Amino acid sequence: MLGSGFIGRFYAESILGQRSQDKVVSIYARREESAKKFAADYGCSHWATDMEKVIAHPEVDVVCIALPNNLHEAAVMLCCKHKKAVITTKPLGRNAAEAKRMLEAVEAAGIFNGYLEDLVYTPKFLKALDSVKNGALGRILWAKSRETHPGPHSEWFWDIEQAGGGCILDLGCHCVEIARSFIGKDIKPMEVMCWADTQVKPIDAEDHAIGLVKYENGAIGQFEVSWTFRGGMDLRDEVMGTEGTIWINSFLRTGFEMFTTGKGADYVAEKAESNTGWLFPVGDEVNDLGYNHMFTDMFRSIEKGSTPKETFYDGYVVNSILDAAYRSAKSKLWEPVKLDIWRGRTGVSKDSHLTEYDADHYLVKEEVTHYGAKKVILKNKTTGRISEQTIN
Amino acid sequence: MLGSGFIGRFYAESILGQRSQDKVVSIYARREESAKKFAADYGCSHWATDMEKVIAHPEVDVVCIALPNNLHEAAVMLCCKHKKAVITTKPLGRNAAEAKRMLEAVEAAGIFNGYLEDLVYTPKFLKALDSVKNGALGRILWAKSRETHPGPHSEWFWDIEQAGGGCILDLGCHCVEIARSFIGKDIKPMEVMCWADTQVKPIDAEDHAIGLVKYENGAIGQFEVSWTFRGGMDLRDEVMGTEGTIWINSFLRTGFEMFTTGKGADYVAEKAESNTGWLFPVGDEVNDLGYNHMFTDMFRSIEKGSTPKETFYDGYVVNSILDAAYRSAKSKLWEPVKLDIWRGRTGVSKDSHLTEYDADHYLVKEEVTHYGAKKVILKNKTTGRISEQTIN
Amino acid sequence: MLGSGFIGRFYAESILGQRSQDKVVSIYARREESAKKFAADYGCSHWATDMEKVIAHPEVDVVCIALPNNLHEAAVMLCCKHKKAVITTKPLGRNAAEAKRMLEAVEAAGIFNGYLEDLVYTPKFLKALDSVKNGALGRILWAKSRETHPGPHSEWFWDIEQAGGGCILDLGCHCVEIARSFIGKDIKPMEVMCWADTQVKPIDAEDHAIGLVKYENGAIGQFEVSWTFRGGMDLRDEVMGTEGTIWINSFLRTGFEMFTTGKGADYVAEKAESNTGWLFPVGDEVNDLGYNHMFTDMFRSIEKGSTPKETFYDGYVVNSILDAAYRSAKSKLWEPVKLDIWRGRTGVSKDSHLTEYDADHYLVKEEVTHYGAKKVILKNKTTGRISEQTIN
Amino acid sequence: MLGSGFIGRFYAESILGQRSQDKVVSIYARREESAKKFAADYGCSHWATDMEKVIAHPEVDVVCIALPNNLHEAAVMLCCKHKKAVITTKPLGRNAAEAKRMLEAVEAAGIFNGYLEDLVYTPKFLKALDSVKNGALGRILWAKSRETHPGPHSEWFWDIEQAGGGCILDLGCHCVEIARSFIGKDIKPMEVMCWADTQVKPIDAEDHAIGLVKYENGAIGQFEVSWTFRGGMDLRDEVMGTEGTIWINSFLRTGFEMFTTGKGADYVAEKAESNTGWLFPVGDEVNDLGYNHMFTDMFRSIEKGSTPKETFYDGYVVNSILDAAYRSAKSKLWEPVKLDIWRGRTGVSKDSHLTEYDADHYLVKEEVTHYGAKKVILKNKTTGRISEQTIN
Repeated sequence: MLGSGFIGRFYAESILGQRSQDKVVSIYARREESAKKFAADYGCSHWATDMEKVIAHPEVDVVCIALPNNLHEAAVMLCCKHKKAVITTKPLGRNAAEAKRMLEAVEAAGIFNGYLEDLVYTPKFLKALDSVKNGALGRILWAKSRETHPGPHSEWFWDIEQAGGGCILDLGCHCVEIARSFIGKDIKPMEVMCWADTQVKPIDAEDHAIGLVKYENGAIGQFEVSWTFRGGMDLRDEVMGTEGTIWINSFLRTGFEMFTTGKGADYVAEKAESNTGWLFPVGDEVNDLGYNHMFTDMFRSIEKGSTPKETFYDGYVVNSILDAAYRSAKSKLWEPVKLDIWRGRTGVSKDSHLTEYDADHYLVKEEVTHYGAKKVILKNKTTGRISEQTIN
Repeated sequence: MLGSGFIGRFYAESILGQRSQDKVVSIYARREESAKKFAADYGCSHWATDMEKVIAHPEVDVVCIALPNNLHEAAVMLCCKHKKAVITTKPLGRNAAEAKRMLEAVEAAGIFNGYLEDLVYTPKFLKALDSVKNGALGRILWAKSRETHPGPHSEWFWDIEQAGGGCILDLGCHCVEIARSFIGKDIKPMEVMCWADTQVKPIDAEDHAIGLVKYENGAIGQFEVSWTFRGGMDLRDEVMGTEGTIWINSFLRTGFEMFTTGKGADYVAEKAESNTGWLFPVGDEVNDLGYNHMFTDMFRSIEKGSTPKETFYDGYVVNSILDAAYRSAKSKLWEPVKLDIWRGRTGVSKDSHLTEYDADHYLVKEEVTHYGAKKVILKNKTTGRISEQTIN
Repeated sequence: MLGSGFIGRFYAESILGQRSQDKVVSIYARREESAKKFAADYGCSHWATDMEKVIAHPEVDVVCIALPNNLHEAAVMLCCKHKKAVITTKPLGRNAAEAKRMLEAVEAAGIFNGYLEDLVYTPKFLKALDSVKNGALGRILWAKSRETHPGPHSEWFWDIEQAGGGCILDLGCHCVEIARSFIGKDIKPMEVMCWADTQVKPIDAEDHAIGLVKYENGAIGQFEVSWTFRGGMDLRDEVMGTEGTIWINSFLRTGFEMFTTGKGADYVAEKAESNTGWLFPVGDEVNDLGYNHMFTDMFRSIEKGSTPKETFYDGYVVNSILDAAYRSAKSKLWEPVKLDIWRGRTGVSKDSHLTEYDADHYLVKEEVTHYGAKKVILKNKTTGRISEQTIN
Repeated sequence: MLGSGFIGRFYAESILGQRSQDKVVSIYARREESAKKFAADYGCSHWATDMEKVIAHPEVDVVCIALPNNLHEAAVMLCCKHKKAVITTKPLGRNAAEAKRMLEAVEAAGIFNGYLEDLVYTPKFLKALDSVKNGALGRILWAKSRETHPGPHSEWFWDIEQAGGGCILDLGCHCVEIARSFIGKDIKPMEVMCWADTQVKPIDAEDHAIGLVKYENGAIGQFEVSWTFRGGMDLRDEVMGTEGTIWINSFLRTGFEMFTTGKGADYVAEKAESNTGWLFPVGDEVNDLGYNHMFTDMFRSIEKGSTPKETFYDGYVVNSILDAAYRSAKSKLWEPVKLDIWRGRTGVSKDSHLTEYDADHYLVKEEVTHYGAKKVILKNKTTGRISEQTIN
């Protein structure tokens, strides 16, 4: 494990708790005291403040990178050098250039690479994706993901040099991969429009942003991200298809509600803002945020020699989309997604939106009126005229 | 009452049901049979297929326009001619040019003018707006409104010539006025970015759109509108402020849930898609969609000689914002909102986002850690360096 | 208006706000200063500390009793004497004996009598009741109503002599009438089992109770009432029928959610417990709690000379059920509901629960298995043997 | 594994999926084809239609009983004979006499015994119980659990001889243990009042029941169970304490909502009633219903030689409470819970409900009025008089 901070600890808890057979052998942290504390808490037999020692340690089979964004590339390069399987926290790089170098390096080295995008591994997301793939929603038209909260815990997030960006990079990476998964990971993202601003925090990066991602088949992805939200952590996905709708709430409204006057309450949930009044805890954060299913996929894939659901390639695609978002926030234009490497389909055209009614008409709408009659609204194929017809 | 369709009937029910003292005296409809039926249903003593006869009728004090968009202007001009108070359904015009002509005409004629934007009169909205004005949310950063459903009932909506546009005009007019109200009706809307597409319906207008409206004080308004949504009518508003959050669900999730196998069920709600399985009715649509409070405001204002909350001026501002949205959907650029007439504040600058911590630092974040310690993240005013400090 | 307290003010707001044509002419309060303040707030031209003066006042057409429970009977008797229409807050009496005397008196005097049970007039309840009557839920099996909050506002509620009881009388009267309405007001309530205790408050009456009311047709009503609930006012109804389910939440979860850090927030809702954190306001309390529809029914009935939905007779039936609940709480037995006056059906037998499958079998259950097969579970009519059969 | 039905399969999926180190070695089923199919599906190396062969199989360390209720006792006795650790599905016995014999047998044999009450192992329940134990709700006053659905899948449930009862035994065993856990497993259940009826199904057992369980400290447990509910599986717990409230929804409303017109949808959730319209799937049933945490507790306890959270003793207590419920449903009296074996506390008295205000008064209520004043309602210690006081 590289990194002993908030996310490193979350990872360790999932790794140790889930399969009962995986161990955190060694921990790297910049400060000795952090490394020692982590080692003690999670039973690591080895620790170091020199990253390469941990990576090279003979008992280490898989390197898990839980470091600030600016340190991912160097860590990945060391894994390549020592031919160790590597799994990396999100986002993969601070930008697509970094991500591309990492992707090319791990593939050249022939090592296992996994991208730790936990939010496409939550139980709700997995079930929703199954439904979408089974066609329950028909053709996907729009997929939105929203992640907003009052800001991250660790100081490095707030430093644009280390983090590489603000909430777009920190939270948008989740949202982009969620929407992309619903729309189809083989469908090419074409261009991005993004608004971003620093509305509340005294920082150089953005603390609030909204973006649209246009896909080659005409579907639209949307992300809403913020470090200025009040009320806890808002994690919601919405999907619209021609035949249905999905709404997922992953954190603040999950069927668990508690009111307390505050005598005796303690830590409730990640990023909750208070511990009195109405609170909305999550049953099992490590599971419900996807960590368990994610590590299971990673470790089973390593064992089987197969490819996990999320690889460095996915991380690279996400970084490319976010780069376009950053360019758009500045240029105020729809910016193309620049993908030097694209392994999905190309030339996918937009589906027709013309539903045949009869030889002369398209069907606009069919409905049952108040009076119980069935009514159709039609469009004449040649004249374009709209007309209404009641059917008994 | 001009117009005997879906919305005319909704209006009549609210007008007759609410104050028990207002009457629908006369009804205009294009077809005689519609006019007669409406007159019978709502007890009108007079009807005509000539619009001017209804407007000029001596017992008519207030003309209520519930006509297709392309007929608003002609109807308003007749009200000016006959000096009758006029209240008009939304949107005011098909575009800002029409709206401006109507605004100027009613003001020149000196007649009472009301803009029937019901969704800023819903009980939830009114209470939420009070909270916002009282400061419960601090400075408003973002206000979103979403209205999506499977498409309107009447055929003219689907004809771009009569309607003037698609779901942006039909539904976006609500969303824009809702967001504008939360942000402040005296704050100038500056520019608009909008994505729009015809994804499902065989029509010339857009059936799905998402837009962002930037205000002079840095706040952002957002609208999400669609005629392709499946599952009923989705009416939700969300507001983020520096001190709080508001989420309003006005239709599909209001604390009323019903499951039925389908024996005996009948009409459940406007734009519901089925009458079996889980259904989500609204208690009292006419009240919960704001019609009652809207007509009460209109009639009391007429009686008192005062100005209602929503006037033709508001309708004109909304049309101007929507015009910018349509231009943006085509140009793919942020388009300026062109307001020849602006009666709010100007030169409002963005609020500072720098919170003083001490002489040398700004405060980035304050939080209580897992361990119960209080932690602050600070930014040095001169060096910009981010640091973390634990306080006991 | 008799009584200037919390409920008197709520009534006045509804009466003045709703139809715009009704006035509160005169107010009685025990203390002069209360009477004067109320008169000033609601524009009453007359006030008195002598109840009879208000009742006898020539401009008073309808007397609205909003007094502590122990004063209802005397007030009603004065209305009879002066032949004034009377509407009375809930419960009608402190017990069935009082209620019966009032019922007999108003009927002997031939005056209009209305029972102000607002919660069977909420928009959600009215729509739900329509669905139930239309058969959407099939045969009703169970109807539960729950009202719990942290206790009433006025001191007299806590004094068992004035109030006549605790939360059973104060809140149970609502719940009993709600369940009775869903099950059918013509179906006779037969017996009651009730648990009650004083768990938290230093009072002589009960502060928490749960009761079951058995109806002649086998349906069961349930009430859950408490003055010890924390978190606001919990108002929920649930109905189960052979063909469906209804869940109504009338107060704490109605699609309006607000988080605030507390700067600037003010009064949020009746019986809310805090004004920071997550809050759940109601859009329009006076409407959503049923006051508007209730007074409209009362006044229209008076104007038309018809009977309102809720009369003293209903109040008497409710008191009789609550009397049985109090007896049961003491005796720990199912206690019969003693109804000297019963105007509904009698001898209604329980519906059969035997669904014919074929000549030899009853149908227990029909379902689709994981594997897509249709399966029936049957019971042999003669042997009683249960068997399973798969159908293609 | 003994039993290859619905629950046996659920168990197998959890056992295999969760820790990645446990195996289902051998399967017993009455019918050879069921045993073979199960063995193939879950990779069992051995199967038999003779129960003892499976129990005695040398590779079997733990016997998991997933049989109809009437076969539990015989299976447990064989485990005692072969000294195998045994874990049994719920309820433990068909009645307390059976449960007691099993409890005494396993303790005499000295074998590990676990009671598979999954619903006290759901992630939400575990977190809620932590909060309760930490005092977030103060003193617990009432704990309710509700489980209702349209009836079980397997035929034996509907046969009172095999099942031992209806929905009280099938579902009430969950509810009773949930409420008991919140109130405190060391607090003695004293007496039970229960209403039960056969309202819909052509069976001898009850298909709907409601019960109250009184505990020695004055707290009240409540269960609501039914096989007649329409709309899916309703699993909800509610807890009231002097300082707070908990509401848990474990199945039908968990933040996952889907609408589908029905093209392409497949199996959604255990006991869902339809696959079109609005559906409410659960992310990961096996986890969210507690199976994972339950088996982890069982297997870790076996490995460590410690006692799991739920043992045969708990199963016995639950059966004793349910026996009292059945007696009460017949006698219509509060029936005592007969516990020959009781290992908790005794003589726990009810907590005082008198809150001191000053030397002369108890505090009834404290609140902030509309006008912002603080008001207290007091009771005089000697006279009992209630009075109100406003404090600045």
